[in-house]
Amino acid sequence: MTTSTNPSVLRTDSVLRTDSVLRTDYERAVANYWNTNRQDPVNLRLGELDGLYHHHYGIGDYDTALLDLPDETRDEAIIAELHRLETAQADLLLDHLGDVRPADRLLDAGSGRGGTSLMAHARFGCEVDGVTISEYQAEFANEQAAAHGVADSVRFHLRNMLDSGFATHSLRGIWTNETTMYVDLFELFAEFSRMLAYGGRYVCVTGCSNDVTGGRSKAVSRIDEHYTCNIHPRSRYFAAMAANGLVPINVIDLTPATIPYWELRAESSVATGIEDPFLTAYREGSFHYLLIAADRV
Amino acid sequence: MTTSTNPSVLRTDSVLRTDSVLRTDYERAVANYWNTNRQDPVNLRLGELDGLYHHHYGIGDYDTALLDLPDETRDEAIIAELHRLETAQADLLLDHLGDVRPADRLLDAGSGRGGTSLMAHARFGCEVDGVTISEYQAEFANEQAAAHGVADSVRFHLRNMLDSGFATHSLRGIWTNETTMYVDLFELFAEFSRMLAYGGRYVCVTGCSNDVTGGRSKAVSRIDEHYTCNIHPRSRYFAAMAANGLVPINVIDLTPATIPYWELRAESSVATGIEDPFLTAYREGSFHYLLIAADRV
Amino acid sequence: MTTSTNPSVLRTDSVLRTDSVLRTDYERAVANYWNTNRQDPVNLRLGELDGLYHHHYGIGDYDTALLDLPDETRDEAIIAELHRLETAQADLLLDHLGDVRPADRLLDAGSGRGGTSLMAHARFGCEVDGVTISEYQAEFANEQAAAHGVADSVRFHLRNMLDSGFATHSLRGIWTNETTMYVDLFELFAEFSRMLAYGGRYVCVTGCSNDVTGGRSKAVSRIDEHYTCNIHPRSRYFAAMAANGLVPINVIDLTPATIPYWELRAESSVATGIEDPFLTAYREGSFHYLLIAADRV
Amino acid sequence: MTTSTNPSVLRTDSVLRTDSVLRTDYERAVANYWNTNRQDPVNLRLGELDGLYHHHYGIGDYDTALLDLPDETRDEAIIAELHRLETAQADLLLDHLGDVRPADRLLDAGSGRGGTSLMAHARFGCEVDGVTISEYQAEFANEQAAAHGVADSVRFHLRNMLDSGFATHSLRGIWTNETTMYVDLFELFAEFSRMLAYGGRYVCVTGCSNDVTGGRSKAVSRIDEHYTCNIHPRSRYFAAMAANGLVPINVIDLTPATIPYWELRAESSVATGIEDPFLTAYREGSFHYLLIAADRV
Amino acid sequence: MTTSTNPSVLRTDSVLRTDSVLRTDYERAVANYWNTNRQDPVNLRLGELDGLYHHHYGIGDYDTALLDLPDETRDEAIIAELHRLETAQADLLLDHLGDVRPADRLLDAGSGRGGTSLMAHARFGCEVDGVTISEYQAEFANEQAAAHGVADSVRFHLRNMLDSGFATHSLRGIWTNETTMYVDLFELFAEFSRMLAYGGRYVCVTGCSNDVTGGRSKAVSRIDEHYTCNIHPRSRYFAAMAANGLVPINVIDLTPATIPYWELRAESSVATGIEDPFLTAYREGSFHYLLIAADRV
Amino acid sequence: MTTSTNPSVLRTDSVLRTDSVLRTDYERAVANYWNTNRQDPVNLRLGELDGLYHHHYGIGDYDTALLDLPDETRDEAIIAELHRLETAQADLLLDHLGDVRPADRLLDAGSGRGGTSLMAHARFGCEVDGVTISEYQAEFANEQAAAHGVADSVRFHLRNMLDSGFATHSLRGIWTNETTMYVDLFELFAEFSRMLAYGGRYVCVTGCSNDVTGGRSKAVSRIDEHYTCNIHPRSRYFAAMAANGLVPINVIDLTPATIPYWELRAESSVATGIEDPFLTAYREGSFHYLLIAADRV
Repeated sequence: MTTSTNPSVLRTDSVLRTDSVLRTDYERAVANYWNTNRQDPVNLRLGELDGLYHHHYGIGDYDTALLDLPDETRDEAIIAELHRLETAQADLLLDHLGDVRPADRLLDAGSGRGGTSLMAHARFGCEVDGVTISEYQAEFANEQAAAHGVADSVRFHLRNMLDSGFATHSLRGIWTNETTMYVDLFELFAEFSRMLAYGGRYVCVTGCSNDVTGGRSKAVSRIDEHYTCNIHPRSRYFAAMAANGLVPINVIDLTPATIPYWELRAESSVATGIEDPFLTAYREGSFHYLLIAADRV
Repeated sequence: MTTSTNPSVLRTDSVLRTDSVLRTDYERAVANYWNTNRQDPVNLRLGELDGLYHHHYGIGDYDTALLDLPDETRDEAIIAELHRLETAQADLLLDHLGDVRPADRLLDAGSGRGGTSLMAHARFGCEVDGVTISEYQAEFANEQAAAHGVADSVRFHLRNMLDSGFATHSLRGIWTNETTMYVDLFELFAEFSRMLAYGGRYVCVTGCSNDVTGGRSKAVSRIDEHYTCNIHPRSRYFAAMAANGLVPINVIDLTPATIPYWELRAESSVATGIEDPFLTAYREGSFHYLLIAADRV
Repeated sequence: MTTSTNPSVLRTDSVLRTDSVLRTDYERAVANYWNTNRQDPVNLRLGELDGLYHHHYGIGDYDTALLDLPDETRDEAIIAELHRLETAQADLLLDHLGDVRPADRLLDAGSGRGGTSLMAHARFGCEVDGVTISEYQAEFANEQAAAHGVADSVRFHLRNMLDSGFATHSLRGIWTNETTMYVDLFELFAEFSRMLAYGGRYVCVTGCSNDVTGGRSKAVSRIDEHYTCNIHPRSRYFAAMAANGLVPINVIDLTPATIPYWELRAESSVATGIEDPFLTAYREGSFHYLLIAADRV
Repeated sequence: MTTSTNPSVLRTDSVLRTDSVLRTDYERAVANYWNTNRQDPVNLRLGELDGLYHHHYGIGDYDTALLDLPDETRDEAIIAELHRLETAQADLLLDHLGDVRPADRLLDAGSGRGGTSLMAHARFGCEVDGVTISEYQAEFANEQAAAHGVADSVRFHLRNMLDSGFATHSLRGIWTNETTMYVDLFELFAEFSRMLAYGGRYVCVTGCSNDVTGGRSKAVSRIDEHYTCNIHPRSRYFAAMAANGLVPINVIDLTPATIPYWELRAESSVATGIEDPFLTAYREGSFHYLLIAADRV
Repeated sequence: MTTSTNPSVLRTDSVLRTDSVLRTDYERAVANYWNTNRQDPVNLRLGELDGLYHHHYGIGDYDTALLDLPDETRDEAIIAELHRLETAQADLLLDHLGDVRPADRLLDAGSGRGGTSLMAHARFGCEVDGVTISEYQAEFANEQAAAHGVADSVRFHLRNMLDSGFATHSLRGIWTNETTMYVDLFELFAEFSRMLAYGGRYVCVTGCSNDVTGGRSKAVSRIDEHYTCNIHPRSRYFAAMAANGLVPINVIDLTPATIPYWELRAESSVATGIEDPFLTAYREGSFHYLLIAADRV
Repeated sequence: MTTSTNPSVLRTDSVLRTDSVLRTDYERAVANYWNTNRQDPVNLRLGELDGLYHHHYGIGDYDTALLDLPDETRDEAIIAELHRLETAQADLLLDHLGDVRPADRLLDAGSGRGGTSLMAHARFGCEVDGVTISEYQAEFANEQAAAHGVADSVRFHLRNMLDSGFATHSLRGIWTNETTMYVDLFELFAEFSRMLAYGGRYVCVTGCSNDVTGGRSKAVSRIDEHYTCNIHPRSRYFAAMAANGLVPINVIDLTPATIPYWELRAESSVATGIEDPFLTAYREGSFHYLLIAADRV
């Protein structure tokens, strides 16, 4: 199902079957969630607008006038606005990838339905590989790449990002857009460090719990339960980077910038019920929305 | 409110006010939960039976004939049986404290309403101190010690077990009975290691997530949310012990022994709704009920 | 001399000559001891009883009536009883290997004359590989496998267990039955962790010095000298496991269970003189006989 | 000479004589440099403008029209502009100290002639202590505090910031404004972590070498020689923070913002000759000007 | 029994009774050995010659003509020669203490009967404290100091060198002359690092096993058994120093220089039987006699 | 340009082009320095004497009578004497390589113009490989090997010593003669440890800053700037060795032995101006000239 890729970059013995990509019951549960949760409209409805299907949240202020629109247009307008904020988030992420050239290679680790990968290719003109443990997502994203006419350059693979098989020092940049809460960060960053070229860039956008307020709050555990994810404390990101040769150059607390997105989403027809825990966690300070750009040294 | 203690053992500058015991928003939320959740009948109803108020779960098979009792006696009988299983758990914990003499000192770290401390004193005849961050629990437990006529030997203090103020190498034994999921284990075991005498014993009974199945499952996050706790993976207990001079001598997987307790509790009037996540987590293997006895070297 | 094995599992460049298996003077001395110490009757005499030649000690109470038998039958009966206790020990070890299926692979690291490997195959029906640095032992054990008609499934190799050449994540279980005192534990467990599948099981039975009593006692050094071994402190097992992703699930102090074996052996014709240091060390508490079952996470 | 301070916060046995503040020949050379290098006009000339004597560089664009001013006013105008940029830098630093209240305490670690401390007091209204190993600087800064009428609240001490004697968990915030290149970062951040309250904030502005370009460049070593300092690589800041419970919340690469300052300074009468190595290092990418704001967890 | 010392240097709460100096069964066994093994003539006979009682071995070539002396004078001459070689060893150790002034303080950690301490005082004129866990040795050595008329400057204490109670940064130099094989090196060097001034010197003379030959050989275990000691591998010395701020400046392999001492001793009347394992171990390369001089940084 | 070598020892995919040997701007700057700095007479003039071109300094006393020679012969005589001292240094280094046999292999890491490699081959008769990141140096040294008629045994390669491509455990000995100040020591010693056989020897001669005097002094930074090098503190050598299985057996402080070389060189026509910083640094104690011989265990 997945497109084959450059054999000089991908290991020849790399595994492609689901049963070898998934190592634990936990990973199987996560993959199953994303394979079967296809009807959840929040991502699909937004992606239909322009063919960029995101699997992450948005940033920036929304147009408050939307809330006063008449019922027949209000929800469509809110959905378009949410999509705009999500795309703005992806744009900010790509802004931090540094000087990427057409001959470089990028990796979207946890690529979901592929939206950020398509935006990266459109911006830099280089090859982009995405990996996901959801067979459905890989297939869906490859279809999108074909629909955008970039299937030669943007490819999605059914692979585990902890062991994705790309060659040592072969990548100019890697990003994770809200996918790090599913894996151990030390293991992940060791693998990223191996694959990145000297001077390569890693950009992470993530929700993380705030060590300053102590342990995981009730609201954070509610999010963990909802997504079967394992939200990490902020400290763990920096500890795992320090242990793996990834040195921050920019860190931005996006929490104030993402709260409007959640407030608007709570008003929309695509609200899933998880909006309230997110808003509670952000407002009480037990949760951050963070961007980290780091160099591989 | 808390009873004063031997000045040669407790730091003279030790803090007693709630605002200095609690360091983070998380700790304040946990303390508030245990201070205000006084009506939860599961512990109170069971403790009324013999004045041993537990804050932990039980082990061992229950008498299945109870389920067939007539309605008017069934629930009382089930409650008595649950209490018997909880007391059996505390007895097993105390079995692993080793050779404790009347002149020794013990610490019940996270002492709840004090049941295990009273049992320890009854068994070993030595002084026992309990610490809790819940003012209500400390007061309640001290009242129980008075009611048992052992207030001179068994004392409960409003203190944070991460910084409880007992003198270096002053304790023969420490236990935690289902309280480690509220704190960082490396910080906790460093403090325990400091307070234990050479050759002292630490006994831990805890629920822990199972690294073999991978990350925290949905059921485990549900428990985290319910109790505002932070369940640790099994591996973290052994890593934190290895880093702090605590060497296991016995480790027992109590999971099969605790499942009957939860099955029976689910049938009782004191069920709180958290029985189902516990049973799911234990049965799917994502959660263990573990006893670790370790020596301070 | 050693049987070839599945090339997909064993490295194709794996070394087979003694001079490349043995890396240090110490390893050469150990190998020489086991190659030339063939006349020591304690293992041979016992193994002759049923073709299970053990290289480890026993557990469980013995039949004290044996001591009162007439001279002509007493010694044979004691030898049979010692053999029964050794087999009981191997059975206990195998009890902790978890759910092993016929399609799984197991490794007996330091396989001696092969008894435990044959028992494992008989119990689980799966392939078992044993490795030893003694050419004599490997040959002897392969002959036993042939005699039991299982040479296709149970194979012994002249290899160093620190670098045994099995493929990464290829093994369901590994055990060491009193062989860890010849190697560095951090190096050993790193290699075991590499070879075990996710969720694989490692079982260790070993004598270890007791950190609680402090440094190595005179009796423990006497045992070290006798076997040219390097007995480790208990703490080092748990530190090395914590550093290598091996997480205990059961730990049993077998010391009380093994003392009878040594008492009986001291009465037998196969006593070697080392019985007294063992009994002294166990009784004074400077030495433990320990079983650790751990999961690879 | 140094003003006494609150005995409950400063250690009673804290050392005040130069010979106990300075531990090594290196520290003695650094102290001597700052004690005797009093005529260097760059800081004095700028400080005379408004009584804020800085010991750091500036950020932001300068007014390019200044370069075309007639000779008689040009240099004064440039000096005023440089001072404005330095003050802007100190303001940015203070922006990142978070929510500081009048009852809080702050530490200026490596306080130079005291400018940033005075600005912090003016902004937050709280007590500020500064420490320096230069007796001349401490005296000069205390005179400035007196001249500003804030000697009761802003105090400067002859102390080593690696062992400054403030009580554990007594400080709400600490900053270092271009002073970390004189000390070992692991030792420094351990001491900062000890003194900060839980949730306290540390802000660092520093020049650091860029690991991405590899080892220290010739230009960076030229700066090291000029100031007898030891510029650290960027990676070391994050490693030392991760090891000491300091977790970044904002990281800003100020390099583009500081280059104009150096360009303007090179045009001024207060140029010292070190402008060229700075500009070379910044432009070739071997050197960064970095702001890190981190929380103590 | 032990002489009191400067209260500003020794902790006021320092423990003086045997039962608090000795922490483990192992330490009690070692103390008992040195307390009761008073008749062993090898050290006493040699010390009687000039009042310098050593507890270590010697270096340098001996006068081979001694072996041909007539029976009535041969043994006395050999004993005098052995003593000369032991004193030469202590002199070499003192040569590496660096620039010690009369106002400095030195610590002899594991001081035995005190010979090296007396030599150090004679050479440098400064105060010397010795610590030992043998009550007999402390008393004996204090008597020697009195006999030499230096009891005011050279004092011996019944203390554990792992926790000897000297003030932080109070010592100019520390040495261990063949005493490190009784303790954990990481714990020991942490304590030494705490007590040494910045730039202070530590000199270690020790026998160590040679990692190059692998594990402890039979001969090394024989020595361990003889002295109830725990000989460390060479690597552990350097690892423990690196972890505790002790940086080597000179390392000398004294093995060739000490072999003659053992050869001569084997010919003497004071041979104890341990000569053969020493010679075997040195000659086969499994054991080194090493001097390490390191600076406290 | 570089001679091919034994394919069983050198990786078949090893990189030979400059652009893959050099990983960072820093490495490119260093390579450029040594590629273009061909006219610097100090090494060339000395090497012309006997065809041993050194890239390091000398040890030992010089003949002071040279200074009084008439002008026409004085400089030639001084140059010959400097060369004698440099050769003496290389001889001392080779003295510490241990027992090297003709069938062994050696690596000269940072081989410069190849002098030490030629001396090693002459002494031991074995194959020697040298690696350098300077294309000019590799070519020059290969020409020297040809001129000495040993091109079959002594080969120089354009390679990065951090990743030189020699097979695991393939080398009997490695040395660095004043080249470690260009690389990270942890990375370097990890690579050396990988390539050395068990029991192999590493010899390092280096200038290092002295932690005892604190940070890098002005004179040390001056040397760093001159050579674009990054002089390490002494402590870092031992920390990096301890982390990588390299255990010292001899450490010699060569500082007193190298000062005469610098004094003589300052009098010669080949002085480069860096003599003064070296003499200042050595005399003030901020810099050491150190030999470390270590075993790979």
